[in-house]
Amino acid sequence: MAIYRYERDPQAIYRESFARIEAEAGPALAALPRDLARVAVRLIHACGMTDLVEDLAATPDLVEASCRALGKGAPILCDAAMVASGIMRRHLPNGVEIVAAIDLPGVRERAAEIGNTRSAAAMDLLGERLDGALVAIGNAPTALFRLLEMIELDGIRPAAILGFPVGFVGAAESKDALIAADLGIPYLTLRGRRGGSALAAAAVNALILPEGEAS
Amino acid sequence: MAIYRYERDPQAIYRESFARIEAEAGPALAALPRDLARVAVRLIHACGMTDLVEDLAATPDLVEASCRALGKGAPILCDAAMVASGIMRRHLPNGVEIVAAIDLPGVRERAAEIGNTRSAAAMDLLGERLDGALVAIGNAPTALFRLLEMIELDGIRPAAILGFPVGFVGAAESKDALIAADLGIPYLTLRGRRGGSALAAAAVNALILPEGEAS
Repeated sequence: MAIYRYERDPQAIYRESFARIEAEAGPALAALPRDLARVAVRLIHACGMTDLVEDLAATPDLVEASCRALGKGAPILCDAAMVASGIMRRHLPNGVEIVAAIDLPGVRERAAEIGNTRSAAAMDLLGERLDGALVAIGNAPTALFRLLEMIELDGIRPAAILGFPVGFVGAAESKDALIAADLGIPYLTLRGRRGGSALAAAAVNALILPEGEAS
Repeated sequence: MAIYRYERDPQAIYRESFARIEAEAGPALAALPRDLARVAVRLIHACGMTDLVEDLAATPDLVEASCRALGKGAPILCDAAMVASGIMRRHLPNGVEIVAAIDLPGVRERAAEIGNTRSAAAMDLLGERLDGALVAIGNAPTALFRLLEMIELDGIRPAAILGFPVGFVGAAESKDALIAADLGIPYLTLRGRRGGSALAAAAVNALILPEGEAS
């Protein structure tokens, strides 16, 4: 009946995907701390690119700090609605709130007021809610730059930062700035132009999924 | 006051992004039909990778057929919630419905019944709603394979297919199958492992955004 031959069993697809990632990126993954390697595998899985691992940068405490914050009920603050939409809510501890900052009321007005993008203004509006939060940026370089300013100028202290802005203007620069700032705040980021909401969401999901869970 | 120097003007970011894409991918873009080149630029913009254009495959009528369908109120049927979430609803003609098929009731049961993934079962549940629809697949290879089966076995006729499944098992194969099937249905796809919800959403947005609109 079926005219195409393809794998239809979700568990087999999952196993074969991760075996191929291991076969191609194994050595690079083995060089990472074990908990971070698990996250890296999920990121590769989300985008189909095994060379992604070469551009990852993270503090060694990223996974532990993020999980500790979520376990205490810290919110997940995202720049874009797509990031928030990609997070697997059913795997979150009860009561963990997910916010898509760009959808906060007053973003457009704040952007005009501070002379910055709506994405940066959205970080601005989050203000002290950023303290202790897991921040996931999957779209705008200006959101990450604004977050760095708030940390360095206003003393805001997120629990951890997942920095995946994407694109041609400011993306690589904002992620390099996150690394260079050496803030004492745990982070995971991807050097260069690559990034995006699917990767930011995959990073959050990697932190909350039980090991060995397909999706 | 600001400790980082970065571009904060959305229009300047937009202009500079597209100038860099043109500088790097100009010759490859110039080889495409003009309306398709616009879509390709948006896809590159969404992922930060100019070499993406080399893996694009499309029928020459893709943009015209998609826009005609949306103009007549055809729904946009997505495999994943993240694809649906990334579509800029305010630019859609009034009354155009966006569906995230994976969220349809009964998906899990149908998957068990047909011995396939939930993503494939979701296509199955859409059934005749696929006729005349714009279908955007940004996650599961099995959704695209199932769609091809429904077209070839059941005579389902979408208005157009945006095929961006991602990953290591079946993604490249399902997109090659779409191309090889030569169904007489307009399509846009990206050969190889790359793809994902951000690209599928960007493809839809490229079709509905007025030319020169930043976001």
